[in-house]
Formats: sequence, structure tokens, C-alpha cells
Amino acid sequence: MQLLKDRIKRDGKIRSGNVLKVDSFLNHQMDIDLFGEIGKEFKKRFADQEITKILTIEASGIGIACITAQYFNVPVVFAKKNQTKNIAGDVYTSRVESYTHGRVYDIIVAKEFLKPEDKVLIIDDFLANGAALLGLSQLVKDAGATLVGAGIVVEKGFQPGGELVRSSGVRVESLAIIESMSEETGVVFRD
Amino acid sequence: MQLLKDRIKRDGKIRSGNVLKVDSFLNHQMDIDLFGEIGKEFKKRFADQEITKILTIEASGIGIACITAQYFNVPVVFAKKNQTKNIAGDVYTSRVESYTHGRVYDIIVAKEFLKPEDKVLIIDDFLANGAALLGLSQLVKDAGATLVGAGIVVEKGFQPGGELVRSSGVRVESLAIIESMSEETGVVFRD
Repeated sequence: MQLLKDRIKRDGKIRSGNVLKVDSFLNHQMDIDLFGEIGKEFKKRFADQEITKILTIEASGIGIACITAQYFNVPVVFAKKNQTKNIAGDVYTSRVESYTHGRVYDIIVAKEFLKPEDKVLIIDDFLANGAALLGLSQLVKDAGATLVGAGIVVEKGFQPGGELVRSSGVRVESLAIIESMSEETGVVFRD
Repeated sequence: MQLLKDRIKRDGKIRSGNVLKVDSFLNHQMDIDLFGEIGKEFKKRFADQEITKILTIEASGIGIACITAQYFNVPVVFAKKNQTKNIAGDVYTSRVESYTHGRVYDIIVAKEFLKPEDKVLIIDDFLANGAALLGLSQLVKDAGATLVGAGIVVEKGFQPGGELVRSSGVRVESLAIIESMSEETGVVFRD
């Protein structure tokens, strides 16, 4: 998606430890016009698929998932990262190891919001090591629902997540795949 | 907002400890059509105001804020609840005591995303004791920006937050104000 790649080139900032800061438009401040174009692009890529629900994970996936859901006319469910008082009883849960934040956490979805008849599109902002995406896929599997695919805004192609998830049979559509990046060369995208 | 009140009556579940579960349409599963109507209503109520930015807080405020932002044509910034590796350096921070989750946490916004010239509308799903809203207001104040007001989806009118925030001079527009609730009487709204 050229608009997105141009934006990453212009406003993304490369930091040490393979960190790409896109917090001026994607995951802290959010450019809602750009999100609209992202949503349309996901709809285009999954136009051939029946989808009944979008699943994402808090926090930075939620905005993109909600804007995207308008083009699919489906509700969004977001997986929570910690059990809170307000989620009682029956939940699906999966363990995720976050490399970005250097910690392990459980992700949780109430069973009533993922049903065997659901056809689920996962939406998230980043795919790097694939931990969150594999955790979300597991929740869909545990619910007996159908995983239609995953729509990712930025994939770090030089990290193993994309290969790992695709080889497990999940269709992954990433709108920008980064082949390599460094402060010297900037961001290089996969064609 | 009658559509919202009807939905709370129909799908809201009252739990002990003054907990209103609206997680089937508002803050776990999210009804994006309803969010669209909520966004239009906030636009109507703040139509007379110049707004340059919407501020919310992770996680459950983000979806409503993003959908609402489409009607104001402004970006959204969400305050983060914990300092992560990806937020470096210059941030505004404020301490929030959450009654729902029984813990104290810091909320954080990068300084570059709240400027003195910003005219900020805060959007959040719930107003109860007002802790989050007061924390967000403090961030706006610290930035030297103008706080235009706050748009709240559900206000618990029997808890002190609404009175507290309004008496501090902030314009609060709540789309549904709960006067009282109990498992026996159900939800009673303020007129």
C-alpha cells in the first residue's frame, strides 16, 4: 500500500533494537484518514471472504480494527491483556510473550463473543515475531471458529513472525512489509 | 441519546459492586454501527466548538474515539497506561487511581502530540469516580492546550466523577447518565 509506505518513509523513525517508531500516525497519535484508507485496503484484500467478526488485541490494534470494521459491517472484539474484575467466568485465554515489552502476559476473550459459527479476521498494527498473532489465532481455534486470515499494517519481514504464521496455514495480508531497516539506509520495503 | 439508553436497557448487565457490564457492545465486543451513532451525537453536541485533537485513554476509549474522530476530521491521541520501551523521553504524565481495577497507574502522552495550540476534546466510554478524566484533563493542562470538553458514553450519575469534573469548569457531555441501578429495578436514567 503505497500511501502507507510513503508515510512510514516520511514519518517513521528508526531506533536501536529494530524499533520502528510510527507513533505520530499509527499507535499513539492516530491519523484517522489514513486508517480509513487502511480499512478500505483490508476490505479489498479480503473482499472474496465471508467475515462475521474482527478480532484484535489491546491497545494499538483497536483503532485500526474499528475503522476497518466499518467496511465489513461486523463487530470488533478486542482481546484483553489482563484479567480484570469486569470479565467474569468463561473466557478463552492464551499466553503471549512480548518481545517489544519484554514480558509474558495472558490474552483473554470472553467465550460469548467468539462462537464456532464465527468467521474471524484478525487485525493488528504490527507483525514481528508473531507472538500476539499466534496467541489470537489460538483463541479463534479454541472457540472452534474459522480463522479467515490476518490483516497487518506493518510487518517486519526480517523477523520470523510472518513466515511462522503463514507456514501454519494462516493467510496474512500485510500492507507494508519491511525488508530491512537501519538508521543509515532508512526503511527498505519488500516488493 | 435514546438509542444508547435502549441498548443499555436491553444488553447491559448489572453486577454487584455497582458494575454495569456493557461488554457485548461497548468495551469488549464493540458494535461499530452504534459507535457511528455515538460519534455523530458527540459531533452534534460539540458542533459549536473548534477542536483540533481528540484525546482518550487505552484501551476501551480508543474505538469510540477513532470512530468519533471521523466526524471531527482530527487525529486521536491515546494516553498509555504504562511507560513502554517505545515511548522515549519527553512525556506528560499523570497519576490515576482506578476504582474498577483497584490499582494506581501512570498515564502518559508524548509531549510532541499535545501542543499549546491544540483544542482538545476528551472522549471516554465511562465516567464514574472521574479519576481517568481528571488525569487526562491534567495532561491537557500540563501541555498548555485548551480543553474544550469531554464526551462520555455512560456516566454513573450516582458516583462523584461527573459533579467533580463539571465543578472544575470542564464541559462534560454524557450520552447516558445512570441515576441509579440495581438488579431489582434495572437501570434508571437521569432525564
